[in-house]
Amino acid sequence: MKVGTKHYKSIWREGYKVFIIDQTLLPTKFSTVQITSAGEAALCIKNMNVRGAPLIGVTASYGVALAMSEDPSKTNLEHTYATLSVTRPTAVNLSYGLNRMRTILESVPREKRGETAWIEADKIAAEDVEQNKLIGENGLKLIEAVSRQKKTVNILTHCNAGWLATVDFGTALAPIFLAHNKGIDIHVWVDETRPRNQGLLTAWELASHGIPYTLIVDNAGGHLMQNKKVDMVLVGADRVSANGDVCNKIGTYLKALSAKDNSIPFYAAVPCPTIDWKIENGVKEIPIEDRGAGEVIMVSPLSNKYKYNLHGIGYPNAINPAFDVTPSHLVTGLITDKKIISPVSPDNMMELKNILTN
Amino acid sequence: MKVGTKHYKSIWREGYKVFIIDQTLLPTKFSTVQITSAGEAALCIKNMNVRGAPLIGVTASYGVALAMSEDPSKTNLEHTYATLSVTRPTAVNLSYGLNRMRTILESVPREKRGETAWIEADKIAAEDVEQNKLIGENGLKLIEAVSRQKKTVNILTHCNAGWLATVDFGTALAPIFLAHNKGIDIHVWVDETRPRNQGLLTAWELASHGIPYTLIVDNAGGHLMQNKKVDMVLVGADRVSANGDVCNKIGTYLKALSAKDNSIPFYAAVPCPTIDWKIENGVKEIPIEDRGAGEVIMVSPLSNKYKYNLHGIGYPNAINPAFDVTPSHLVTGLITDKKIISPVSPDNMMELKNILTN
Repeated sequence: MKVGTKHYKSIWREGYKVFIIDQTLLPTKFSTVQITSAGEAALCIKNMNVRGAPLIGVTASYGVALAMSEDPSKTNLEHTYATLSVTRPTAVNLSYGLNRMRTILESVPREKRGETAWIEADKIAAEDVEQNKLIGENGLKLIEAVSRQKKTVNILTHCNAGWLATVDFGTALAPIFLAHNKGIDIHVWVDETRPRNQGLLTAWELASHGIPYTLIVDNAGGHLMQNKKVDMVLVGADRVSANGDVCNKIGTYLKALSAKDNSIPFYAAVPCPTIDWKIENGVKEIPIEDRGAGEVIMVSPLSNKYKYNLHGIGYPNAINPAFDVTPSHLVTGLITDKKIISPVSPDNMMELKNILTN
Repeated sequence: MKVGTKHYKSIWREGYKVFIIDQTLLPTKFSTVQITSAGEAALCIKNMNVRGAPLIGVTASYGVALAMSEDPSKTNLEHTYATLSVTRPTAVNLSYGLNRMRTILESVPREKRGETAWIEADKIAAEDVEQNKLIGENGLKLIEAVSRQKKTVNILTHCNAGWLATVDFGTALAPIFLAHNKGIDIHVWVDETRPRNQGLLTAWELASHGIPYTLIVDNAGGHLMQNKKVDMVLVGADRVSANGDVCNKIGTYLKALSAKDNSIPFYAAVPCPTIDWKIENGVKEIPIEDRGAGEVIMVSPLSNKYKYNLHGIGYPNAINPAFDVTPSHLVTGLITDKKIISPVSPDNMMELKNILTN
C-alpha cells in the first residue's frame, strides 16, 4: 500500500537483503530496517518490530532463507527452526511458514538450500498477498450488501489486521480498502487495543488512504453497538481452530459478545494458513501468549517516559494475556481466501478442509 | 480510609473550609486542595479533581453551602444550583444532592440559609458514609458465601468505586475492604479503565490496604472469566433506572456480557440515592456524557507528555462516551444499603421503592 507517494509492503527483499518497516515506531515515525540474519528476524518478531500473524510467518520464512544463505547445513536448519519457532506462541502462521520451509529444504541437497529457501519464502509472501486480495473480494460482498440498505456502512475493528499485519492489503482491512476504492461510503470504529495500541496502526492506515475512521477506547464498542452505531464487526485472527473458534488480540471476545447481544454480524478475516486443523477446540487448546506486565504498566509502548506509579507504592502488579478466543457460536462467519464460511458449523469447516486438501 | 498513618475522607471540612484530595494527580501524587466557592466546586467536578457519583453529589452540596455563606439570596441559590447541575450529566447523585439542598434552603428564611446549608451538606456526606458501610455489610455476605466454596475469592472490578469515589469506604470496594478485614483471602482483578485510567486509583486503594490485586487492560476480563479466574464481578454505578438498568463507566456492559456468558455473578453496589426512579428504561433514557476526544488521544490524563500522533497526519479522530448502560437482565443483583435486590425484577425494584418512600 502507499505511504506518501511510494508503494510499500510490510516486508520485502532487494536482492538477498530483507527489509521491514519498524512497527514499534509507527504510527509516530516511519522507518525501515534491514534484517541481516535469522537471529535478527527472531528478535524482530519477539520485540514486535514486525507483528500480525501473516507477517510473522513470512518474516520467519525469510529468516530461514537468510540462515540458509549463510550455512545450509541440516544442523543450521534445525537450529534456525528452533530459534524462530519459539519467538511467539499464539499465531499459527509462524509454524505454518517454518514447517513449509523445513519440509522443502530437507528434500533438497545442501547446495540448493540457499536458493530454494529464497524461492519458497518469496512464494509464501506472494501467497499471502494473493490470499488477502481474495479475502478482500469475498469480504467486499458483505459490505456491499450492507451498503444497499443504508448510506454509511459502520464497521468496528479491533487491533490491526491491515496491510502492516500482513505482507500487503491486510486481512480484515482488505475488504474495507476495496469497498472504499469502489466508492462505498464507509466509516471504521477503531479500537485503541491496549496495551500495545495497535489501533493506532489501523487509524494510520485508514487515514493514509482517506477512509473515515474514529478511534475509540476498547471499552466503548459495546455502547456503540447497543446504540445502533455499528453495522458489522470485522477482525483478523492469529489462529482459528478446526471447529472455528477464533483466537485474536485480547478483547476480541468481548466485542463478539456485544455483537451477538445486539444482533450485529461478527466476521473474522482468515487466510487459510491461519486455520490450525490440528486443534479441535480453540477455547481449550490454543496457547495464549503472556507478554508480561511491562506493557500494561507502561502507558505507551512507544515511549518509556510514562509509567503508572502508585503514590508511595511504586508500580502496580499486572498481567498481560495478549490474546483471547472467541467461541465459534459467536462468529457469524469466517471470510477466507477460498470462501465465506457461514455459519461456522462443523460441516462447513469440513467442507473447507476438503477444498484445501484436494 | 488511611493514607499512610493518617485517616482521610475524600472530602471534609475544617470549620467553614472545604478540602478535597486532588484526584487528577493520584495515583502518582497525593495532594489536598481547598475549595473556596461554588464556582470552584463546579470546576473540580467538571475537571474531575473529584469524581465518582456519590462524591460528585457531596461536593456539589458543599458548593451550595459555600455559596450560601457568601450570599444566601434566592437568586444566588438558583444561580449556584444552575452552575453546579450542568457540570456532569450522567451521575444522578449530583441532582439528588442539589435538589435536597434547594428544597431545604427554600423552606428557611434567608438568614438561616448559611448554617442550614452546612448542616444539610454534612448530613448528605454522613449518609453517604453510612450507606457505604451498609453496602459493605450486605456485599460481604456474598463474598463470604463464595469463600466457603474456595480458598481465594477473585473479584473483578471496573473503574474506581472505592473510598475515593465516595466520601469514605466506597461502594463496590466497601465489601472488599470488609472481607479483607475479616481475614477472607481475596484477590481483585482491576480493570485499567481507559481513557482516564481510574483503575489505578483502585489499585492504589487496594495496595494501600494490603489487598492483593492485579491490574489488567480492559480487554482482558473476558479471557479471565472464560478461564475461570473470576468468581464475581463487582462494580459501582452512576445512575440506576427504576427498571434496574445500571449506568456505569464505559466498558461495564462488556464485562456484564462476559459474566453472563460464563455464569459468573455480576453485582453493582448502589447507594439508594444512585437510583433514579424517574427513569423507567436506563438503556434508552440515561444521558451519556461525551468527554471529548482529548482523553482518548492523550495516553495518560496525568501527563500531557505523550499524545498519539499519526505519522504525517497528526492526531487521530476520536470520540469519548464516558459511560454505558448494562441492561438489568445482565445484572445478578444490586447491593444497596437497604438490601440486596436479586433478581433485578420489577417486583423487587418496586419493593425497594416502597421501603424508601415509607
